[in-house]
Amino acid sequence: MKAKVSIIMGSVSDMPVMEEAIKFLIDKQISFEVNALSAHRTAELVSDLAKNAHKRGVKVFIAAAGGAAHLPGVVAALTPLPVIGVPIKSSSSIDGWDSILSIVQMPAGVPVATVALNGAKNAAILAAQIIGTGEPEVQQQIEKFKAEMAEMVMKANEELQKKLMK
Amino acid sequence: MKAKVSIIMGSVSDMPVMEEAIKFLIDKQISFEVNALSAHRTAELVSDLAKNAHKRGVKVFIAAAGGAAHLPGVVAALTPLPVIGVPIKSSSSIDGWDSILSIVQMPAGVPVATVALNGAKNAAILAAQIIGTGEPEVQQQIEKFKAEMAEMVMKANEELQKKLMK
Amino acid sequence: MKAKVSIIMGSVSDMPVMEEAIKFLIDKQISFEVNALSAHRTAELVSDLAKNAHKRGVKVFIAAAGGAAHLPGVVAALTPLPVIGVPIKSSSSIDGWDSILSIVQMPAGVPVATVALNGAKNAAILAAQIIGTGEPEVQQQIEKFKAEMAEMVMKANEELQKKLMK
Amino acid sequence: MKAKVSIIMGSVSDMPVMEEAIKFLIDKQISFEVNALSAHRTAELVSDLAKNAHKRGVKVFIAAAGGAAHLPGVVAALTPLPVIGVPIKSSSSIDGWDSILSIVQMPAGVPVATVALNGAKNAAILAAQIIGTGEPEVQQQIEKFKAEMAEMVMKANEELQKKLMK
Amino acid sequence: MKAKVSIIMGSVSDMPVMEEAIKFLIDKQISFEVNALSAHRTAELVSDLAKNAHKRGVKVFIAAAGGAAHLPGVVAALTPLPVIGVPIKSSSSIDGWDSILSIVQMPAGVPVATVALNGAKNAAILAAQIIGTGEPEVQQQIEKFKAEMAEMVMKANEELQKKLMK
Amino acid sequence: MKAKVSIIMGSVSDMPVMEEAIKFLIDKQISFEVNALSAHRTAELVSDLAKNAHKRGVKVFIAAAGGAAHLPGVVAALTPLPVIGVPIKSSSSIDGWDSILSIVQMPAGVPVATVALNGAKNAAILAAQIIGTGEPEVQQQIEKFKAEMAEMVMKANEELQKKLMK
Amino acid sequence: MKAKVSIIMGSVSDMPVMEEAIKFLIDKQISFEVNALSAHRTAELVSDLAKNAHKRGVKVFIAAAGGAAHLPGVVAALTPLPVIGVPIKSSSSIDGWDSILSIVQMPAGVPVATVALNGAKNAAILAAQIIGTGEPEVQQQIEKFKAEMAEMVMKANEELQKKLMK
Amino acid sequence: MKAKVSIIMGSVSDMPVMEEAIKFLIDKQISFEVNALSAHRTAELVSDLAKNAHKRGVKVFIAAAGGAAHLPGVVAALTPLPVIGVPIKSSSSIDGWDSILSIVQMPAGVPVATVALNGAKNAAILAAQIIGTGEPEVQQQIEKFKAEMAEMVMKANEELQKKLMK
Repeated sequence: MKAKVSIIMGSVSDMPVMEEAIKFLIDKQISFEVNALSAHRTAELVSDLAKNAHKRGVKVFIAAAGGAAHLPGVVAALTPLPVIGVPIKSSSSIDGWDSILSIVQMPAGVPVATVALNGAKNAAILAAQIIGTGEPEVQQQIEKFKAEMAEMVMKANEELQKKLMK
Repeated sequence: MKAKVSIIMGSVSDMPVMEEAIKFLIDKQISFEVNALSAHRTAELVSDLAKNAHKRGVKVFIAAAGGAAHLPGVVAALTPLPVIGVPIKSSSSIDGWDSILSIVQMPAGVPVATVALNGAKNAAILAAQIIGTGEPEVQQQIEKFKAEMAEMVMKANEELQKKLMK
Repeated sequence: MKAKVSIIMGSVSDMPVMEEAIKFLIDKQISFEVNALSAHRTAELVSDLAKNAHKRGVKVFIAAAGGAAHLPGVVAALTPLPVIGVPIKSSSSIDGWDSILSIVQMPAGVPVATVALNGAKNAAILAAQIIGTGEPEVQQQIEKFKAEMAEMVMKANEELQKKLMK
Repeated sequence: MKAKVSIIMGSVSDMPVMEEAIKFLIDKQISFEVNALSAHRTAELVSDLAKNAHKRGVKVFIAAAGGAAHLPGVVAALTPLPVIGVPIKSSSSIDGWDSILSIVQMPAGVPVATVALNGAKNAAILAAQIIGTGEPEVQQQIEKFKAEMAEMVMKANEELQKKLMK
Repeated sequence: MKAKVSIIMGSVSDMPVMEEAIKFLIDKQISFEVNALSAHRTAELVSDLAKNAHKRGVKVFIAAAGGAAHLPGVVAALTPLPVIGVPIKSSSSIDGWDSILSIVQMPAGVPVATVALNGAKNAAILAAQIIGTGEPEVQQQIEKFKAEMAEMVMKANEELQKKLMK
Repeated sequence: MKAKVSIIMGSVSDMPVMEEAIKFLIDKQISFEVNALSAHRTAELVSDLAKNAHKRGVKVFIAAAGGAAHLPGVVAALTPLPVIGVPIKSSSSIDGWDSILSIVQMPAGVPVATVALNGAKNAAILAAQIIGTGEPEVQQQIEKFKAEMAEMVMKANEELQKKLMK
Repeated sequence: MKAKVSIIMGSVSDMPVMEEAIKFLIDKQISFEVNALSAHRTAELVSDLAKNAHKRGVKVFIAAAGGAAHLPGVVAALTPLPVIGVPIKSSSSIDGWDSILSIVQMPAGVPVATVALNGAKNAAILAAQIIGTGEPEVQQQIEKFKAEMAEMVMKANEELQKKLMK
Repeated sequence: MKAKVSIIMGSVSDMPVMEEAIKFLIDKQISFEVNALSAHRTAELVSDLAKNAHKRGVKVFIAAAGGAAHLPGVVAALTPLPVIGVPIKSSSSIDGWDSILSIVQMPAGVPVATVALNGAKNAAILAAQIIGTGEPEVQQQIEKFKAEMAEMVMKANEELQKKLMK
């Protein structure tokens, strides 16, 4: 099955954070591929991936990186697809400020759709929303997911009320 | 013609920044609508807009706001569509830090695709990329736009070479 | 007994921080209610709560949230009551900067009375001070509380003197 | 007529910012007094003001200061009334960060209800909301004010639609 | 023996940090006194201490506080003596930024001699240097202390050389 | 007449800021000397100045610098005298953050008494307070200066009252 | 003459800042080349330049960029030469923080030698120092330059003394 | 064997971070020396080292320090050699901001080649790149190192693919 979402992260050490995105995509049955490739150490592999993904049927990239996080921007430079950027709070990062600013402050012409620090799950939801603009059944999944979230919050609140009653 | 992009900004005073987005969409012949509605002062109007846009054929939101910028998140809470957030550096903002953090740091479940401070043009490009995932001719426009940008940079560099030669 | 203070927090995970507020209100015998409702996931419930609280006799809101903390502002948009905002330093927050700025930097027209990061106790004291502007016996409780605090500091200082003597 | 709101600012140079607060209070016919007194240079005058205001019928303080902004906290230490703090972005301030942090990060026991940088108007609205908890006609004014704001935003949006039509 | 240095901290919880200052003063035989008094909760005690210390022979204050750290400024407002401010990185502080800015950014007319975050030892050294401007034997102690520090660094470096040789 | 205060700044371009310090010292008849010497470009001259000042009767240094502001620390390393550091907000500085942090965060053993960004006047007042610890007539000048400041604030407040009366 | 220094900047709009570097290299007769090429818009041209420069005799790169400044890192990824990074404070940058962090926080394996915000002149000096490690006559130029700088500072200080004498 | 790289750190406590640099240099057989000397406590030893290193055959300095990190700049002031600065995130540092800004923001005339926070390995790689500009076999080592890094990333990615297959 062809991947619709191409997840790329700067290092295999980003996997624990990115698993949240993978889980969501599996759950919503959206096909994906995963690569851990450095924008700096394996520039050519990244370049090939970015340039050809849309030809293989990929609809959207999720690119995650920490520190001076160039990977999302480097991918965005070479693809016509939307690129979602996930700033990673790695040990070498300055509390995540470097990752966020390196991803969100892209120059005019080359946007990266930045989500929250370590916001892997939100990246996957956003990817689904983007795919949903062309595939109504994915959009319906998003609507269902939103209803479920509301349900969960309401149940948790009801339980809180019970606890407070005691 | 039905709007594919729904631009919403917190105040009419954000128009000078957002005109860059409008120009790009006109230039690429992507239909759009524009509203200036405050998430706080006109909560219900914003709510109606957000809840119904996808039923009217809107594919993606661009939401811009400054300071404690809640508008993009409030819209994202109520629509199954992808929402692009544009942090505005208004006079009352703390150098834009408040706008960026209020938009990018959305909680799990409700992503906002954040672009750079005052990054209205990039918001429009990203909107086009998102629409392009379902409409090949829009994706081709993005590819053409990227080629033109490269051309412009190369020409400017050639002129720089000539100047330096003198 | 009708609640005078309506505490609302973005998630049940904020309870450990907010318990300081609850403890103070119980201690000073000020009636309250508690809800854990997300501004984004359960927008309508929050809206109902905010719009109707003053009709039920609520005098003041305490709204707590972390990250891109929109809850206090969303509540403030819909109620004529004063809203006290408590920025929460959650694990996904950037050291609390996002929470503070998303709450304190509200646009003109919709103030949120922001207290310190995780300042749940101060939120409750402020709520009591606000109620005290209309109820003299609550104001007297505040005066008594201030005197007790002073007493405690003085006693601790006296003990410190004894320790240093040795 | 006895003042219900006591405005105090660190220096007469803060008047241009604070006039927004005064205008709102005059407009809503809420009585007030204004003093420009430094917490550091005229500590005793500030102390007298803070200790006795509630005995004179004052319901709420608005205290504004820039830089290492101690005035709101110093007032809050000595009064049982709620104190609203307005961080001022003065020329000597570090982009307002110092003012905001010196006011919002008050220690447990002594809250200051902090509004946005230069948020004088919001301070006045908050003061009215606080007074409104005990005086229904003031609360009704707040509701009316909110409706008027919504009206203004809607009208501005309608004009924007007309402009865009051309 | 009359205290030459008056140490004051906002809370007894600051003692672990401030012990470094006390140790230095004991070591250099400079007399001192210690108080843990809150600028906000025990304003009058602090005021008395600040106003009268120079009459009792105190030469310099060391004032330590965290969060919205007003204590050093409040003391400086009321004494003709130099006041050394020690920003404390307490658990409720935003990584110390609030403490530093609340102390260092004092308005014109009321300086506080700010040292590093948790810089209790440096505060004591600075106090000794200040006393040393009037007492030659204290200045000589400073010179000796500086020579000893240099000695220590050199010895540590020599040991490092030996380790690296292996 | 021998200088009691030695002012040193990193560049002659810092003079407009430092003139506030000079004015105060002239006004209070405290003798001083002024040098504009770079810690990096003229390291030896700075070293000579720092090592010998106390032998010439200097009581205190005021050292001002911007950007990566090493001058105050370099002077403090070589003198037994107290060194007051003035962070300068120069055009090449990052809003003054670099200057403040490079001066205030000195390592244990080598304190610099840091004042506010561009706080030249406060540096001079602090220098007078330090000299005043050994010279009662200077301390009396500080007390007089404080009384005059209070007077000025009170007069300005009285005038404000008159204006508001109209 | 073959270029020893290859200057590359993200946009021709960076030229006003980078002219300081060019001036220094001309002055010290160090050969150079200049290109204005975007890492994102003209990725391949940048790649070619970076991969081949050392084969053409280039010894060191100076790469300048603003905002999410990826250019220095992208060049560093592809060349065995040292790359000096100049963060540019462009209008779209957040006071330069984004540029500095995107350049200095490079991941292990791919260093960029970062200089100050807009530090074009220092980049050229550093380039000369690097070339000087292999070419003694360039190193001597650096020594001469340092002596001249010291001379200039001393003369300016002498003039300052004369002015103060009056 | 004469040292080509002179590593200097502000304190022996910086050794755990700096060992990464030492390991790389040993691995690539680049000769080096190591000193732990404080810029402030042992100013003269640092001065001697900086002034004479190039006469002993040293090609490049690596200088590491935390907090108000003056060591790299102090060394750069006195040597014609390139100086690489490593900001250290020590316990007394404000999350590393102070170290980075004190090193990267050097004034015009005295550059320091700053690498990432705790970026000791990158400092060593940069040193090798600098030496490589004059010694082709070192440059070849850098090229080989880069190829090995790419290899490692690719292998890790292949293993990731295998894991995901399961």
